Amino acid sequence: MTVSPEVFLAMGREVLARQPFSQLLGAELAALEPGRCELQVSITAQLKQQNGFAHGGVVSYLADNALTYAGGTALRVPVVTAEFKINYVRPAVGERLVARAQAVHVGKTQAVCRCDVFVVAGAEEKLCAIAQGTIVRLPGAEAEATAKA
Amino acid sequence: MTVSPEVFLAMGREVLARQPFSQLLGAELAALEPGRCELQVSITAQLKQQNGFAHGGVVSYLADNALTYAGGTALRVPVVTAEFKINYVRPAVGERLVARAQAVHVGKTQAVCRCDVFVVAGAEEKLCAIAQGTIVRLPGAEAEATAKA
Amino acid sequence: MTVSPEVFLAMGREVLARQPFSQLLGAELAALEPGRCELQVSITAQLKQQNGFAHGGVVSYLADNALTYAGGTALRVPVVTAEFKINYVRPAVGERLVARAQAVHVGKTQAVCRCDVFVVAGAEEKLCAIAQGTIVRLPGAEAEATAKA
Amino acid sequence: MTVSPEVFLAMGREVLARQPFSQLLGAELAALEPGRCELQVSITAQLKQQNGFAHGGVVSYLADNALTYAGGTALRVPVVTAEFKINYVRPAVGERLVARAQAVHVGKTQAVCRCDVFVVAGAEEKLCAIAQGTIVRLPGAEAEATAKA
Repeated sequence: MTVSPEVFLAMGREVLARQPFSQLLGAELAALEPGRCELQVSITAQLKQQNGFAHGGVVSYLADNALTYAGGTALRVPVVTAEFKINYVRPAVGERLVARAQAVHVGKTQAVCRCDVFVVAGAEEKLCAIAQGTIVRLPGAEAEATAKA
Repeated sequence: MTVSPEVFLAMGREVLARQPFSQLLGAELAALEPGRCELQVSITAQLKQQNGFAHGGVVSYLADNALTYAGGTALRVPVVTAEFKINYVRPAVGERLVARAQAVHVGKTQAVCRCDVFVVAGAEEKLCAIAQGTIVRLPGAEAEATAKA
Repeated sequence: MTVSPEVFLAMGREVLARQPFSQLLGAELAALEPGRCELQVSITAQLKQQNGFAHGGVVSYLADNALTYAGGTALRVPVVTAEFKINYVRPAVGERLVARAQAVHVGKTQAVCRCDVFVVAGAEEKLCAIAQGTIVRLPGAEAEATAKA
Repeated sequence: MTVSPEVFLAMGREVLARQPFSQLLGAELAALEPGRCELQVSITAQLKQQNGFAHGGVVSYLADNALTYAGGTALRVPVVTAEFKINYVRPAVGERLVARAQAVHVGKTQAVCRCDVFVVAGAEEKLCAIAQGTIVRLPGAEAEATAKA
């Protein structure tokens, strides 16, 4: 069974809508396809550091969640982030954060993914962080899938 | 000039109070000394995933910020997190998250730090993530310090 | 079935003796118990950088292999390193490198481990790198174990 | 002063020739330009694991050194790897390892770089690891540069 790109994105948005923390931050899923996604957040006052930048925690949330979407849609099972690493390369000064992630290698039970996070200031988009991580099948999801088969 | 442990902690709390994102999440600085800190957050409904756990983004925020406090108090200058890596080892199911970080190596311009994040459920405290990262002197802080010297 | 600490260490040394690359580098297993190990290497001329330090690749080999021993003895199945991260904190100037690793969290199919690498110069031992990584059951080892059960 | 691409590559090979550890492993610099490099190694018997794969330590050495070349040629000063993270995605079974690295963000004192490591088996090239790390100006290089200016 395949679904249209529109339905696929709508399904992804439904998952995001069920995450209270993503709602608190105002995250928006801008694009989603198997192994690839774009997740955004508007840099509102409450997402900032004491110095006016978006807090690193917002940038890492965005990278983490984008990695999970890229890995989850590549693996096509319920997943969690097992681990990730992020390098902040520029203060996140601007109006909006845009994270683009993709699955680089997809195995049976895990996907290794990369993510670029950009900050949008006016018409300009600048790289502010890069991340790399492992997305794994949700423990228990395998047994469940077998039980259902 | 040295300050008492109480004043040191009070200074750290003042910094936290100026971070809107930390306020949004309800982060509390429980302990602070040079090269070492404990940062906590209560797992309220809005900090959760769709499955009832604390969102990974909350855990990574806490690790990131605790690493920054440990590194910043070790270096004793304004700092930022340059990079960090986190392994989630257990779903964060419980009432409270407690992050304990310490500087493992302190150089002239950077500190390498480690952090353990625990989830507190009832009387039990369980490890839910471990992190490692680099805290660096805020770019520009060096020039400023030189200018003042 | 349990084995004595001496036999456990001897078994670990046998594994190391079968790794041609570990032999090329002259790695020695100094201590081994479930979830914990100490791996050493003498800094010979051929393991150096152009500036006289031990090459970073030697330090990361040692961290990687020590993490694998710690995770493998904790999981008690054939394993591989899935990923790791290392921070070099000091040039490895000295006669010997000593890596001490331990499993920090052990699950069903993976162990998350930490490692400290020290450089020994004369009577002094100095931290030169810290690492953190994930050790996983060798793919196929699970099926094999099931087949044998 | 600019140099031709050929001279630039020759200079890079000279650096590699002065690293005893790189010589021990038989590393070859296949391509080099500012912020980008390709480093290779032939998988000889002595670079293997007990199971016939190239040892993870060889793969991580290659990633680490390729990251350093990418970052060093981008920064154009003597550098060291401050930290890196690597995910192994496939056993390195084949005749040759090829690492391709590039600087993703270049600042004043550091470059953040990414690297893909492929294993070549016959006519096929397969991804076996991905890495991400920070390359920094060699401590002391700045002072030296200032002294010469």
